[in-house]
Amino acid sequence: MKDAKEVTIEEDSNSDKVSDISLLSWAEDPKNRIESWVNTVTDSSSSNFIPVEDRIAVFDNDGTLWPEQPWPNQLQFALDYVKAKINERPNWQTDPFLTQISKGDYSVLEKARKEDVYNLVYASHAGMTESEFKEAVMKWMDTATNKKYTRKFNELVYSPMLELLEYLRQNQFKTFIVSGGGADFMRVFAEEVYGIPPYQVIGSYGDTSFEFVDGNPIISKIEGDIFYDDKEAKPIAIHRFIGKRPVFVGGNSDGDQAMMEYASASNYNTLCVLLHHTDEEREYAYDKKTLSGHMETALEMAKEKNWLVVDMKKDFLSIFP
Amino acid sequence: MKDAKEVTIEEDSNSDKVSDISLLSWAEDPKNRIESWVNTVTDSSSSNFIPVEDRIAVFDNDGTLWPEQPWPNQLQFALDYVKAKINERPNWQTDPFLTQISKGDYSVLEKARKEDVYNLVYASHAGMTESEFKEAVMKWMDTATNKKYTRKFNELVYSPMLELLEYLRQNQFKTFIVSGGGADFMRVFAEEVYGIPPYQVIGSYGDTSFEFVDGNPIISKIEGDIFYDDKEAKPIAIHRFIGKRPVFVGGNSDGDQAMMEYASASNYNTLCVLLHHTDEEREYAYDKKTLSGHMETALEMAKEKNWLVVDMKKDFLSIFP
Repeated sequence: MKDAKEVTIEEDSNSDKVSDISLLSWAEDPKNRIESWVNTVTDSSSSNFIPVEDRIAVFDNDGTLWPEQPWPNQLQFALDYVKAKINERPNWQTDPFLTQISKGDYSVLEKARKEDVYNLVYASHAGMTESEFKEAVMKWMDTATNKKYTRKFNELVYSPMLELLEYLRQNQFKTFIVSGGGADFMRVFAEEVYGIPPYQVIGSYGDTSFEFVDGNPIISKIEGDIFYDDKEAKPIAIHRFIGKRPVFVGGNSDGDQAMMEYASASNYNTLCVLLHHTDEEREYAYDKKTLSGHMETALEMAKEKNWLVVDMKKDFLSIFP
Repeated sequence: MKDAKEVTIEEDSNSDKVSDISLLSWAEDPKNRIESWVNTVTDSSSSNFIPVEDRIAVFDNDGTLWPEQPWPNQLQFALDYVKAKINERPNWQTDPFLTQISKGDYSVLEKARKEDVYNLVYASHAGMTESEFKEAVMKWMDTATNKKYTRKFNELVYSPMLELLEYLRQNQFKTFIVSGGGADFMRVFAEEVYGIPPYQVIGSYGDTSFEFVDGNPIISKIEGDIFYDDKEAKPIAIHRFIGKRPVFVGGNSDGDQAMMEYASASNYNTLCVLLHHTDEEREYAYDKKTLSGHMETALEMAKEKNWLVVDMKKDFLSIFP
């Protein structure tokens, strides 16, 4: 059922611009590996050829497209939100954890209980309508800055990965995000920053309600089940949201291993790219000992499955635009 | 955040072919209404202009893109599956409802309890792996025929709606299905039949598991929660899967009303098209008194909201290709 002769399949519009894009910020070795894979799977005379409609590329976000240290940016959004709003919320003022955070004392994060972090994220998300949440994220993104770089968060994305996204799209891949981050959070900036529209952004999500308020149909975030898009849930989310097995996966942690194994078992020739954060100077160096982005078994599996491990210090010629 | 100057947004590739497609199977009045709306929202000098990235069009499936009488095609798939497999399933043979169905006695459907129908659909879906289910649907689609027309189900889709899907895509709309039918069921044929890839097919879905069987990563349908994509769940699914409010909705029942109201409250100029099944001869005539596709309040709301009600007998010059 792969042909669709009588109907138009929606495709990328830029197949004539293949030569425009190159992986300028990549070192020779990983660049050659990526280009040689793309060349073979897009060559219709090759036995490795993948038809356009099956060129599904998925990327983790935190630690893969942008930094996740000392904690994920969405958590920083939650921290800043609590700080900005605690004066208006009497019930937060009786919560010692939220109170300390509102004072900018993030030391409590290190020994935070799961419930505390849940309460924190819940406080900055739940009860908001679709448009209120979008506006809150937009406002934060336009004003907040990262402490280490004193730059806005949406400017701190990895140049080599932006090039890779572009390069794949120019070769008629559909690019998706499959991240543990909140879908609604990422969708606010993914179109502008990564060129990935909201319907290609898959993330964690919670229950919502649909109701009429003053005659207007409103969707609101409500307390309820949360789908955590991490580890085994990533291939489950890919099945649920994409309905096709990816042929390319980019990731950087054990949380991405399951979707890489899922892709690697495809009938097609696939490529998985695993970023190893090794650059303490320009970014961060971490793998086994970190709260965000733990990577241990995925590095082992990478050898067995021949995944491309990218040593960021050596292989990324530049980090940020 | 609507501009994306520095990155390539994935778009449809066929903006140069706008004149190729016309709504040949539509009567003058609805055709003029649709064309005039598309002309104004795609005219960059118009105050009604909708940027390409926000041209989201969603369609119900059963009763909107193909028939749903005497019952939805997916239910026919389930009936045929039980009939074909009951000899291999001792536990089905002790179920009086499944036994009667396996003999081709569908009279029991009329007074079936909800649990019976659930058991029936469950029997033909749950426990199957991703690829087993896909193969079962493909095999059925290639062999089963509709009793009234003695044609295969994937040939019995509404010509005017196929033209409309094409016409919208030529005008750089993204076309999605948002249906009460099973996502996995529709995804098997939607790309070939409608030109809609799996990641733009949203439907009901159940829980799945991810596990390794003989070293292979396998996704299987399991018993658990089911998301029924109908009524208020449709705008909730649109938020969850698309993340943008549609500007065009096609539907045919009260189950589509909530997503039409959601779209109608957009800041953009929108169009909702409601099919009214009025053609007993060429297809079926039904609205208030039917098990599948009940339409009553949506017809009332259509007047208030100025939705385009399509009288299929009068407005569809042909029904099937």
